[in-house]
Amino acid sequence: MSEFSIIDEFFKPLGLIGHSHSTDIGIGDDGAVISCPEGKKLVVVTDTLVEGVHFPLETSGYDIAWKALAVNLSDLAAMGAVPAFYTLCLSLPPRCADKSFLMDFAAGLKGLATKYGVPLVGGDTTKSDRLTLTVSAHGWVDSAKVLRRDAAKVGDKIYVSGNIGDGALALQALLKKYDAALVSSTVFDKFYRPEPRVKLGLMLGDIANAAIDISDGFIADLEHILLASNVSAEVDYAAMPFSDSMKQYLQEIDNPWLPLTGGDDYELCFTLPVSQITAFESAINKEDLGVPVRSIGTIVPREESGVIWKNAPELVESISAKGYEHF
Amino acid sequence: MSEFSIIDEFFKPLGLIGHSHSTDIGIGDDGAVISCPEGKKLVVVTDTLVEGVHFPLETSGYDIAWKALAVNLSDLAAMGAVPAFYTLCLSLPPRCADKSFLMDFAAGLKGLATKYGVPLVGGDTTKSDRLTLTVSAHGWVDSAKVLRRDAAKVGDKIYVSGNIGDGALALQALLKKYDAALVSSTVFDKFYRPEPRVKLGLMLGDIANAAIDISDGFIADLEHILLASNVSAEVDYAAMPFSDSMKQYLQEIDNPWLPLTGGDDYELCFTLPVSQITAFESAINKEDLGVPVRSIGTIVPREESGVIWKNAPELVESISAKGYEHF
Repeated sequence: MSEFSIIDEFFKPLGLIGHSHSTDIGIGDDGAVISCPEGKKLVVVTDTLVEGVHFPLETSGYDIAWKALAVNLSDLAAMGAVPAFYTLCLSLPPRCADKSFLMDFAAGLKGLATKYGVPLVGGDTTKSDRLTLTVSAHGWVDSAKVLRRDAAKVGDKIYVSGNIGDGALALQALLKKYDAALVSSTVFDKFYRPEPRVKLGLMLGDIANAAIDISDGFIADLEHILLASNVSAEVDYAAMPFSDSMKQYLQEIDNPWLPLTGGDDYELCFTLPVSQITAFESAINKEDLGVPVRSIGTIVPREESGVIWKNAPELVESISAKGYEHF
Repeated sequence: MSEFSIIDEFFKPLGLIGHSHSTDIGIGDDGAVISCPEGKKLVVVTDTLVEGVHFPLETSGYDIAWKALAVNLSDLAAMGAVPAFYTLCLSLPPRCADKSFLMDFAAGLKGLATKYGVPLVGGDTTKSDRLTLTVSAHGWVDSAKVLRRDAAKVGDKIYVSGNIGDGALALQALLKKYDAALVSSTVFDKFYRPEPRVKLGLMLGDIANAAIDISDGFIADLEHILLASNVSAEVDYAAMPFSDSMKQYLQEIDNPWLPLTGGDDYELCFTLPVSQITAFESAINKEDLGVPVRSIGTIVPREESGVIWKNAPELVESISAKGYEHF
């Protein structure tokens, strides 16, 4: 297959998904040309996945593609943006440059892209010996609704969506450090096909002070908010939302910080001023977000330590390593 | 070095280059937030470079970075867009995750980005065992000035900028298929530090019918215009602009199609309606484009063959392979 037959057969159809009325030129020119909705800001996010680093080698094409798009839509959600379109750069090893892999891969992109109505507008396909994908997703946001990291205020309540740590638990099982039979399929689903919290992000635009998506581990990502906002946080360990599989893991294995330092959650962490809590709770009761949210702490004035834990197991030095470190 | 110290030390300063007044939020949040100039279309381009595929392993960090940004600015030029900002996703093998490489790399980005006033607004840094870079560059264009591939018209004159084939010649020398001592340093410079033809692209917006950047080889890229526009082209081989080194190569080696099928030119190929030629020639006489342009052929009604050659060496079957094939 040539680069151009790959594009024609597998990628061009993905350009027809969703609100392509804003795409003046899509796949097939030197670049895409996009109409900007009046009065909106453009949000640009980008993330790379490398096989063996971000997903196991045996991951299906469907799941790899899903995840590559999902982690980017998760970043858009954390900015409060409406997803609009994306590009994909794909470096393919020989084993992946075949029809069955690419068909499965395109189906994964189609599955998630259709859910959020986002067309593929361009990209690049090259060869490599290691499957590497870079998605850049673009969205639109009202200026007043941008969710920043640096705007948490003392007194804000801190929330997280979903369960925290399931990505890390799935990885423990995949690395054979924990019995996979004890881990529910929903935990693996979350690792392979995370659901970006787009609806939640859009709702938060009006009411949250700060938000981030949890991708490097809860503590590391909360620390990003705290440092950028020059505040600290009191967090109640006992309030952290863990799945049943995670609760069982924590009973059996003495590793209480795994769920808070492992990556791959793709949940949102956000801070709400107390004045907005009633509005927020009535909003989430009215609208189905598809994911629960839970209050887990409070923003406090900056102290030496970013996070002050309550009801927590003894702190070990290594948890200050804070999430996944690449180098 | 952690991912975050790499970002702080080497990449954050690149966010301060150029017209960052349009960057509401740059590096350091989940995504960048950009103000869209009123009435403009957004142009998005993206290209990946992989070590050993797109550049030799021994290429300096400076040149790798320059090229990664240059090939994207070249795509923007081919769309007639004003470069605005870019993102960078970097997968680093251990040997590159050190200060001296990254300092050199950042200097290369700074060198080219400063020339065009484009800030880095975001990206991702991951580990890999093969240096892989994806840049996504963004620009703005007036709707009426978009340069498309699919708008060449019968009767248009076909032009190219610069010399064609120097990238391919440099590669022959680097692969030790030709004596590097016979190749001038400007040819190697062009391979390592291509100059995107931004000024030319902007000038063409008002007058050209179609344009493309020559990255996969002249014939392959001209064919993209021809197919998309449903036309053919009469091209005069004797009019093709070759450097002195290339002319010497062609005298010594019986490989007349190398310059027209090799990649890495990053020149523009464009078609002008005859009615615009006087305006175009007076414009290029007034303004210094930094590169010569030459008329090399004419658009004709679609025939079986895309390109009809005049004054050409005997055609060999293999030139229909048309440019670099990845798979």
